[in-house]
Amino acid sequence: MDLTNRRILLSSRPTGVPEADHFAADEVPVPEITDGEFLVQTEYWSVDPAMRGWVNAAPNYLPPVEIGAVMRSFGVGTIVASRHPNYAEGEVVSGMFGWQHYAVSDGGNVDRKVEEADLPSSLALGVLGLNGVTAYFGLTEVCEPAAGDTVVVSTAAGAVGSAVGQIAQILGCRTVGITGSAEKAVLCTDSLGYDAAINYREENLGEALRLACPDGINCYFDNACGPISDEVITHLAIGARIAICGTVALTEWDPIPVGPRVHRQLLVARARMQGFLILDYKARFPEATEKLANWVREGKLARNEHILEGADAAPGAIKMLYEGKNTGKLLVHVN
Amino acid sequence: MDLTNRRILLSSRPTGVPEADHFAADEVPVPEITDGEFLVQTEYWSVDPAMRGWVNAAPNYLPPVEIGAVMRSFGVGTIVASRHPNYAEGEVVSGMFGWQHYAVSDGGNVDRKVEEADLPSSLALGVLGLNGVTAYFGLTEVCEPAAGDTVVVSTAAGAVGSAVGQIAQILGCRTVGITGSAEKAVLCTDSLGYDAAINYREENLGEALRLACPDGINCYFDNACGPISDEVITHLAIGARIAICGTVALTEWDPIPVGPRVHRQLLVARARMQGFLILDYKARFPEATEKLANWVREGKLARNEHILEGADAAPGAIKMLYEGKNTGKLLVHVN
Repeated sequence: MDLTNRRILLSSRPTGVPEADHFAADEVPVPEITDGEFLVQTEYWSVDPAMRGWVNAAPNYLPPVEIGAVMRSFGVGTIVASRHPNYAEGEVVSGMFGWQHYAVSDGGNVDRKVEEADLPSSLALGVLGLNGVTAYFGLTEVCEPAAGDTVVVSTAAGAVGSAVGQIAQILGCRTVGITGSAEKAVLCTDSLGYDAAINYREENLGEALRLACPDGINCYFDNACGPISDEVITHLAIGARIAICGTVALTEWDPIPVGPRVHRQLLVARARMQGFLILDYKARFPEATEKLANWVREGKLARNEHILEGADAAPGAIKMLYEGKNTGKLLVHVN
Repeated sequence: MDLTNRRILLSSRPTGVPEADHFAADEVPVPEITDGEFLVQTEYWSVDPAMRGWVNAAPNYLPPVEIGAVMRSFGVGTIVASRHPNYAEGEVVSGMFGWQHYAVSDGGNVDRKVEEADLPSSLALGVLGLNGVTAYFGLTEVCEPAAGDTVVVSTAAGAVGSAVGQIAQILGCRTVGITGSAEKAVLCTDSLGYDAAINYREENLGEALRLACPDGINCYFDNACGPISDEVITHLAIGARIAICGTVALTEWDPIPVGPRVHRQLLVARARMQGFLILDYKARFPEATEKLANWVREGKLARNEHILEGADAAPGAIKMLYEGKNTGKLLVHVN
């Protein structure tokens, strides 16, 4: 083969949210694969809030991406050549392939073979990928909602949030979405099944929560952890459960940002706040993916994607997430 | 009967920690009991951090004590007269009798009959009372320690903390106590069975925690929730559990005090922080009290009491707790 691999590299280390000029593109020949390897031609690259942590120098749950290295990312693509006994040409796989058109793999960075041939492959990066299983396990295992509970979701129209809201609805909960534009608030109630949506930029959040959650909040799926969450925590019902999934509203991590202390609210409401990392549930992903795929087929889980066209859109995409400019799962389509 | 009842009344409402001059003493005749009532002559009055919340105007889990009313408190005493079919003269009872020498009761404010005649009655206000069951359920149900876990306790020599440390030791944990004087640190290791004790006022807390908890902290029983806890939370092991029992280090509640945000620590450690209110476990108190009494009899739970003499010591006693001037369960002995 004689292919060119267009790649997006980390060119300098951001201190906060990475922006377009922290990245550079290059083109290199695609290396030949050797025994035990296969070549993936990527179709979609994922853009996730966690990528901000991956390029940060501060300790995290993965080592930082090195300067000059291909930006780490999830992706989905088709195997175009294989010398690996378990992976065949033509199979679709999702995994940590990076922001590049071609990735050589020995299978170690593969999440799974994407076998839902009846569904779009991009879903493997969203509701049938890490976002979906994050929503599923974070809600069911950390928030533990009961039918009839009031479930509040921050970044309600985002890749994870939109799945949380819809799964909670399927489980019989009353769902309230918090989002950052009138357009997304309409999306929440009209397309994503929320019982109520609050546009925190234009409404009085405290007043809106009081109206939308008259019996208090039983579950809070928190993708924000900033001023929005500071208000949410003052409306907890007794025994509330908060899942900390992401901290997209905390734009600086070092030094640790200050905010209102949560201890009295947790104490008085006998509530719990719990962080979770979805990779800890890896062994159970198939059980969630199967359920999620069936809900998609039954029309209970709406497709909710925001697709950018072409590799050059990737470098500026992480910042879009932190500014709330995406509507649904943010992806880069490259092939 | 013609008895005088000396009482301590709330005379003005504090905004923070109540001090001696927020109270006034008076003497009134003991009322006659009627059918269905009995009269308790109190022996010990309890002094608890929660009393600060009871006199505060801010909403809490109990209505505020009214100005001019007898100060709400737990106590233990002997029934000296009864016209109630289930309570007999001579029986010892613990309950919410208030800071007064004589309390009329219909049984509604009784916690339990104190039937461990072989043990001091004062223990019914400490390790065999709410403090003991708080330590027991907070540790076993909220912190959920496994044998071998590292358990850190703030206000380690206090009424609750000292019981937590000893119960964790009984359960096979490594225990580290944080306390505020050299004298109490010695008490922790010499009398209360802690594997290590840290005097946060004189040692570098972060460095001391690193040395005492080389594998991180699995459980944190938090009675403080101020700067001490801000440091502790940076040393969590993966999957750590934090029980919020009290917030003695937060001297102002309204407006909500600010401090370092806990969200990133909870997320990266996949940790949980949970408030609990011991009265939610009321139906299970007998199971805990029986275990605790047996541990006292076996010498595994040390008596750890700080007893003030006479009613006039009560008004200034709550502040002593918030200044860390007590060593163990703080009680007022009145008879």
